[in-house]
Amino acid sequence: MYPKNAWYVACTPDEIAEQPLGRKVCGQPIVFYRPAPDRVAALEDFCPHRGAPLSLGRVCDGELTCGYHGLRVGCDGRALSMPGQRVQGFARTRSFPVVERYGFIWVWPGDAALADPARIVHLHWADNPEWAFGGGRYHIGCDYRLMIDNLMDLTHETYVHASSIGQKEIDEAPCKTHMAGDEVITSRFMPGIQAPPFWQMALRMNGLPDDQPVDRWQICHFTPPSHVLIEVGVALAGLGGHEAAADKKVACIVVDFITPETETSIHYFWGMARHFNPQDPTLTARIREGQGKIFAEDRQMLEMQQQNLLHYPERKLLTLNIDAGGVQSRRVIERMMAAELGA
Amino acid sequence: MYPKNAWYVACTPDEIAEQPLGRKVCGQPIVFYRPAPDRVAALEDFCPHRGAPLSLGRVCDGELTCGYHGLRVGCDGRALSMPGQRVQGFARTRSFPVVERYGFIWVWPGDAALADPARIVHLHWADNPEWAFGGGRYHIGCDYRLMIDNLMDLTHETYVHASSIGQKEIDEAPCKTHMAGDEVITSRFMPGIQAPPFWQMALRMNGLPDDQPVDRWQICHFTPPSHVLIEVGVALAGLGGHEAAADKKVACIVVDFITPETETSIHYFWGMARHFNPQDPTLTARIREGQGKIFAEDRQMLEMQQQNLLHYPERKLLTLNIDAGGVQSRRVIERMMAAELGA
Amino acid sequence: MYPKNAWYVACTPDEIAEQPLGRKVCGQPIVFYRPAPDRVAALEDFCPHRGAPLSLGRVCDGELTCGYHGLRVGCDGRALSMPGQRVQGFARTRSFPVVERYGFIWVWPGDAALADPARIVHLHWADNPEWAFGGGRYHIGCDYRLMIDNLMDLTHETYVHASSIGQKEIDEAPCKTHMAGDEVITSRFMPGIQAPPFWQMALRMNGLPDDQPVDRWQICHFTPPSHVLIEVGVALAGLGGHEAAADKKVACIVVDFITPETETSIHYFWGMARHFNPQDPTLTARIREGQGKIFAEDRQMLEMQQQNLLHYPERKLLTLNIDAGGVQSRRVIERMMAAELGA
Repeated sequence: MYPKNAWYVACTPDEIAEQPLGRKVCGQPIVFYRPAPDRVAALEDFCPHRGAPLSLGRVCDGELTCGYHGLRVGCDGRALSMPGQRVQGFARTRSFPVVERYGFIWVWPGDAALADPARIVHLHWADNPEWAFGGGRYHIGCDYRLMIDNLMDLTHETYVHASSIGQKEIDEAPCKTHMAGDEVITSRFMPGIQAPPFWQMALRMNGLPDDQPVDRWQICHFTPPSHVLIEVGVALAGLGGHEAAADKKVACIVVDFITPETETSIHYFWGMARHFNPQDPTLTARIREGQGKIFAEDRQMLEMQQQNLLHYPERKLLTLNIDAGGVQSRRVIERMMAAELGA
Repeated sequence: MYPKNAWYVACTPDEIAEQPLGRKVCGQPIVFYRPAPDRVAALEDFCPHRGAPLSLGRVCDGELTCGYHGLRVGCDGRALSMPGQRVQGFARTRSFPVVERYGFIWVWPGDAALADPARIVHLHWADNPEWAFGGGRYHIGCDYRLMIDNLMDLTHETYVHASSIGQKEIDEAPCKTHMAGDEVITSRFMPGIQAPPFWQMALRMNGLPDDQPVDRWQICHFTPPSHVLIEVGVALAGLGGHEAAADKKVACIVVDFITPETETSIHYFWGMARHFNPQDPTLTARIREGQGKIFAEDRQMLEMQQQNLLHYPERKLLTLNIDAGGVQSRRVIERMMAAELGA
Repeated sequence: MYPKNAWYVACTPDEIAEQPLGRKVCGQPIVFYRPAPDRVAALEDFCPHRGAPLSLGRVCDGELTCGYHGLRVGCDGRALSMPGQRVQGFARTRSFPVVERYGFIWVWPGDAALADPARIVHLHWADNPEWAFGGGRYHIGCDYRLMIDNLMDLTHETYVHASSIGQKEIDEAPCKTHMAGDEVITSRFMPGIQAPPFWQMALRMNGLPDDQPVDRWQICHFTPPSHVLIEVGVALAGLGGHEAAADKKVACIVVDFITPETETSIHYFWGMARHFNPQDPTLTARIREGQGKIFAEDRQMLEMQQQNLLHYPERKLLTLNIDAGGVQSRRVIERMMAAELGA
């Protein structure tokens, strides 16, 4: 169960650079393609002629052409032409609202009449030259809400990522969860600790000492339908932490867009936006590689957790204080789905 | 759904040369084997003793011997012997009518009383020394009727096989479909065109010029239950096309025997019979290799089309004039199935 | 369907030497681990916090620690601690009776109150320095009862193992089945035959001639729930066979512990205990390798038999005299299951 009246990340521009892309979003097979270099379109991935996937076709003169018998379809789903056929009476293929923004292709799998691009989550860093971004995509066999739980409770870092970013202080520091409208925010502050290796590197790159105590923070922001953006950073200890002056701290945003494929699988778009050394592509690649390894550690856990939950569908899970972020996020999602159902 | 009272290609002789072959035909597990070098037998692939597949056994002194505990079964399915056992009371294993003809093993998975070998499709070229044949087998995950559709509408060549045998003239030339009893014939004639590479080669091999306009033809013959034989060829332009004198044309027959394995999978026996240079095995191998590559291009399309149709089981597809061959073929199949049900 | 109030082999000690092992036994996901070097514990493989598999965790200070968020669980399933949480109210995780004995870890997946270690099958050879043991484990996709049938009717050796241990005399010699309480015993004696290669080797190793007629025996012992121990051996002919003096014979026990994983899959623990040259680890390895190859031959047969039975669920199989061992074993199993149901 997932809200359909929402903007989800469907793919990245490189995935549709050469040819159309067939991808299932919220259980719906969709073909994404570029009718022109600066435009993007999304149609149901089903040719009205014989049911072939349109994603096996090609874009010819800006028109998606079925790779089986040559039916051409417009961005609005209207059949345009077919060799030797009159196509006026052909059923229109469903089209989906789709927007390219912030380096992602966003799709609205629900009621097109309600799709307002202004409702796409705002990413202040995305078009800001002071920031750099690198990321990747994983396919994971779990309910998208298990991934939200994972990201809204970072105590798992101490265990799942024990050998990389985990440190004991994380699960020793209490976290707090509060709401801001439909946004769920879970914060954890770790004052006066030793910076772990990643942050030591970041401190050095910003001309700050890497051997002094720091105040570390993790502020997880859930926004519907399934985005988790996590402010993370360190400041030299005692100078205000998250609120310290810019030259006394280093900060990043862990980026997580979670797109349901089916009830038990997701397309997971992960990445990191950093507010230092934005012009260094080698650093971007290095961070991306490290993050890719760390996020791969979650995959086995999430997939086996999913299998366990399918094995015991009736079990009630515990919801502790550390789970408040996930619990509140699920409530927001449930309200969205109830609203859809009511509408 | 498939007719069972019909002759299907089960396998080729090389597949049973060394040992019995277990293969599912029309949902029915069957073991094919040679009780003698010039004979072939087909039994349900299920030992009445403990349900072991008989196809894991061996042929000993002409008798199929279960590979688990040694029960011997005759070609008629009668239990013949078993070490230390009296087998008179054993249930008879179902046997299937089976015939070796034209280089194929044909099986009748339905009511044995109705199996008349005279009803096996006649292949005039198969035992004719003026013709040569080469072919192969693919397992494809689609309803057998999707493959019939594919072959009865060759406009797909322009798209699926754009880089090999497709040419724009194919889908620009109108096709006509007519019936001859239970046979469905879809014809397409392309007069005065440039011969594509395959036919240029064939023209040269027959001492004909390869750079002059030709009349090209494609005549698809569906015969029940699921055979499609396609007359293809070119003649020097203006000399009668398909009816031109033998020394002014070159001709082949594309051979397609489609055997349902399950509701959504087939054993696809493809090949080409050619009416030129029949004594050249190197040419046979070369054509076979090229055809194998081309026919592999259909596989992804058919399997993803099948997945799409399973995803939207309620959808009605379009039936255009180009689909008439497939539509008529399905009607013939439906009549056969209705007749079986009525009987 | 399998009895749950019974001791099954869960794993071997090497499988839990480094980290916890997740394994499904009788449909139940269980984590096996060592809280201390000489102890073993078994819990439901499901963390009460969020359903993560506990088997992805680690043992810290003797306590199993969930690899997701750090909940620690005791051997009795009681939640012991969790960073920043009070765990007194947490549901107890189900624990399973588990015993290490004879080089195996034994688990009781049913009612713990009934688990009496004295009911573990007695293996007189296991702790006896005059005997040596080597074995392995296979995962096989079949109902555990098909494997019992297989082992209680060794006529299959003539067919499935024709190229290794099979010999014609096996299926020519009649077998007899009798009961001893809940034990089923099927015996076959082959007097005055030529020893096959394995036994020739064994005779030589015991200083006995390998070229003289021998009396060979196979005595299969089924004990519930699903153990089959097979006494096998040869004695110089005419000196009493199985009862001959120790210096005139060589003897082994083929060891088969069959643990249901699901209704149609098993963990199969196989091996051989031999009563000669026990101090020769090279011989143990050689026998183990040979046995592993032979037992792998059964796998294809059993898995395809299982598929056939699933395809024809309504079919009645034959139960011949050679099947008496399997038939009687199934009756014992049915009585156990009826007793469980009644209780």
